[in-house]
Amino acid sequence: MSSKKPSIPKGTRDFSPKELVKRNYLKQHLIAAFENYGFQTIETPSFERSETLMGKYGQEGDRLIFKILNSGDKVKSADLKAFEEGNLSQFSNSLSEKALRYDLTVPFARYVAQHQNEIQFPFRRYQIQTVWRADRPQHGRFQEFLQCDADVVGEPSIWQEIEAILLYDQVFSDLNLDGVTIHLNHRKLLAGIAKLIGVESKLIEFTVALDKLDKIGQQGVIDELTVKGFSSDAIDRLNPILELDGSFDSQLKTITEILNENDVAQEGLEELSFINEYFKANTLKKIKVDLDVTLARGLNYYTGLILEVAPPAEVKMGSIGGGGRYDNLTDLFGLKNTSGFGISFGFDRIYLVLEELNLFPKTLANQPRFLFLNFGEETAACSFEYLMKLRREGIVSEFYPTDSKLKKQFIYANQRSIPFVIMIGSEEFKNQEFILKEMDTGAQSQYPLKELIQKIKEIL
Amino acid sequence: MSSKKPSIPKGTRDFSPKELVKRNYLKQHLIAAFENYGFQTIETPSFERSETLMGKYGQEGDRLIFKILNSGDKVKSADLKAFEEGNLSQFSNSLSEKALRYDLTVPFARYVAQHQNEIQFPFRRYQIQTVWRADRPQHGRFQEFLQCDADVVGEPSIWQEIEAILLYDQVFSDLNLDGVTIHLNHRKLLAGIAKLIGVESKLIEFTVALDKLDKIGQQGVIDELTVKGFSSDAIDRLNPILELDGSFDSQLKTITEILNENDVAQEGLEELSFINEYFKANTLKKIKVDLDVTLARGLNYYTGLILEVAPPAEVKMGSIGGGGRYDNLTDLFGLKNTSGFGISFGFDRIYLVLEELNLFPKTLANQPRFLFLNFGEETAACSFEYLMKLRREGIVSEFYPTDSKLKKQFIYANQRSIPFVIMIGSEEFKNQEFILKEMDTGAQSQYPLKELIQKIKEIL
Repeated sequence: MSSKKPSIPKGTRDFSPKELVKRNYLKQHLIAAFENYGFQTIETPSFERSETLMGKYGQEGDRLIFKILNSGDKVKSADLKAFEEGNLSQFSNSLSEKALRYDLTVPFARYVAQHQNEIQFPFRRYQIQTVWRADRPQHGRFQEFLQCDADVVGEPSIWQEIEAILLYDQVFSDLNLDGVTIHLNHRKLLAGIAKLIGVESKLIEFTVALDKLDKIGQQGVIDELTVKGFSSDAIDRLNPILELDGSFDSQLKTITEILNENDVAQEGLEELSFINEYFKANTLKKIKVDLDVTLARGLNYYTGLILEVAPPAEVKMGSIGGGGRYDNLTDLFGLKNTSGFGISFGFDRIYLVLEELNLFPKTLANQPRFLFLNFGEETAACSFEYLMKLRREGIVSEFYPTDSKLKKQFIYANQRSIPFVIMIGSEEFKNQEFILKEMDTGAQSQYPLKELIQKIKEIL
Repeated sequence: MSSKKPSIPKGTRDFSPKELVKRNYLKQHLIAAFENYGFQTIETPSFERSETLMGKYGQEGDRLIFKILNSGDKVKSADLKAFEEGNLSQFSNSLSEKALRYDLTVPFARYVAQHQNEIQFPFRRYQIQTVWRADRPQHGRFQEFLQCDADVVGEPSIWQEIEAILLYDQVFSDLNLDGVTIHLNHRKLLAGIAKLIGVESKLIEFTVALDKLDKIGQQGVIDELTVKGFSSDAIDRLNPILELDGSFDSQLKTITEILNENDVAQEGLEELSFINEYFKANTLKKIKVDLDVTLARGLNYYTGLILEVAPPAEVKMGSIGGGGRYDNLTDLFGLKNTSGFGISFGFDRIYLVLEELNLFPKTLANQPRFLFLNFGEETAACSFEYLMKLRREGIVSEFYPTDSKLKKQFIYANQRSIPFVIMIGSEEFKNQEFILKEMDTGAQSQYPLKELIQKIKEIL
């Protein structure tokens, strides 16, 4: 028995019914759109064998993976020598064989490789599950959060890129969210630019610096490239590209001219052009697409089109989604030649956007509509009987379980936002009547008990 | 890059789309019934502070809690002295401050105590979340599985026991599952029996032995009690009780006579009698209730009515649900006087029962109904255009992403059980027509392209 105030670990959250009603509204919209597009869902275990996860997210990622301590006597395997030598990560690894899911992408690749003989390719899967990261908790960053991914693997086709953009459009218009922009780029176009300015051998350093343009500005990128030893000649050639602006169409024209003879960039240019033409001919409902030749995305497994989803300009927030084409992801688990295209929705951030813009509908839950008050033994069974009749009609209702003071029962109805209260006291019971009270207005009327169901159906 | 066949930890599961369609069918039925009864959902974090969980499930339970290894440098806190002295559990505790949820009850009690000022009591909550146990994996026993609980806390009332039984009835009739029996007993009746036979001071040993009646039989229980030092006089008085049989009504009459003057048992007898009378007057749709005065249930926090749900007799399986009244659970976290009644549904077992009795509906998923075949560049855009028109009508459809051999595309349609295929080849495109093929019969017909949506709506 602890007398301390109970609490939860930093970076985790309890979700109250009120929050979950909204979270489930968002989740249901995502699921409906995924299924409308023919995606099927899978679930993978919360923890994977350590070797499945370790080494897949870079050094920083490895550090952020939650490890599960071996159970019982298995901690005997502790590598004390490593501990004494200060090699704490080796010591940790000797104590753990399993680790919590860090994202959905690596477990998905593992799933596809492991079940390749049961899967029908092209495999369209969506997955909405929790992931865990041992990040330092801070405002808006959690150690446990939901990821929502949709991927299709097995048959590469530019139509998948188009579908993904249309899927975003579907979701955001279902959610009544205006002003979302999808920024597109292509890894092969980035490689072409790197070749153009003569830094082909330093492609990763180049894209890492480029990725920071939003945060540190053009001069910041130039400074970083200079520090990293890029020549001033290369930087001079890069500058006009960093300054590209205007519509998808016009930017694409310009960059196509710049990369005219560039063999590395051609496939990227063709795919971007296909997408551009498609969306010139077919209007999107809510979102916009544009070209951002400086978009790089941190993850190095991308090989083709990449995209990032920006929230409406009036909301100050980072991207609310992203994705791209990857050609070699399942190679990690021994399955080659399985190109895929995947996108993800930033659940918590989209939730915050909807909250900030007041886009959650007012009435959402399967909220109880009627509360039968409790007037004690004499009439309780009668109230309970009608309660059950309403429930059988699918009308969500409650019966106050004890004959507490009526004031307390009314407070409960108010706090739960139950719009109507039904009263069958001893007087009403004797006359076979009931009183219906509307909580908002306080208006109340009396009706014959046998008309209860009918009256209530009239109200609804 | 590992070349080993990828796999998941023992005791965990990947869920395929086919399994999840059925699991979600079951989950949706549970949620619908919970919400119809006015229960609201909460979610708690996957891991809790160790002190929240440890010591709440007995010594055996503690051993089965998965601990999360401290991250990064925090493993420096390793208690090497404990390790060297062979005190492995102290060593483990020195490496971990968080642990994975072992059930939903303790986190719920923690939630109620922590958020008592935001909660409207009586608080009706349901919770469907994963729990983890470091149990030795074996057939049908997993280290990660779903629990589904509904509890109401804050205002004790026998109507809650009645509601819980009706809720089980609702769920199992929604699932078309016949033959479920709920066995009832009451902790206070057990205490009365213990007093009657003079073993009041050994109540826990008595109930532990009794709980094994199903497994070891009457003689087994008697042997165990004898070993534990119960007198032959006590056992003689117990025997007629072990042999009680017949209807709820007749058993209750007999045990009421036996415990006639027994003050400890009276409240239990009254509550059981109230329930018996209610279900004599109000017929249950699918399930039966009966009295089992030997039912004990392992968990010691129960203080009133207890129940266990048995699957249909033709299915060989343990209980598929259970619950009971507890008066002091939130005391653990400093909140007194908060009686509750809770029930749980054994998700995996109910799934297996439905599977075994073939009770999952044939068509369940948001399965794609139409697959547009891909005949290459010339007609792909046209097929894609109609695909999107169908999707906007809410008709789940797919477009094969590449112009692979038609045979391969047909195999895909077959394997995914997509009932109709739509073909717009170059000939059809020229004539502005399409071919609709029913996969089951092989029948195919040709129609004008502009009638596509209308034709398809006719089919559905």
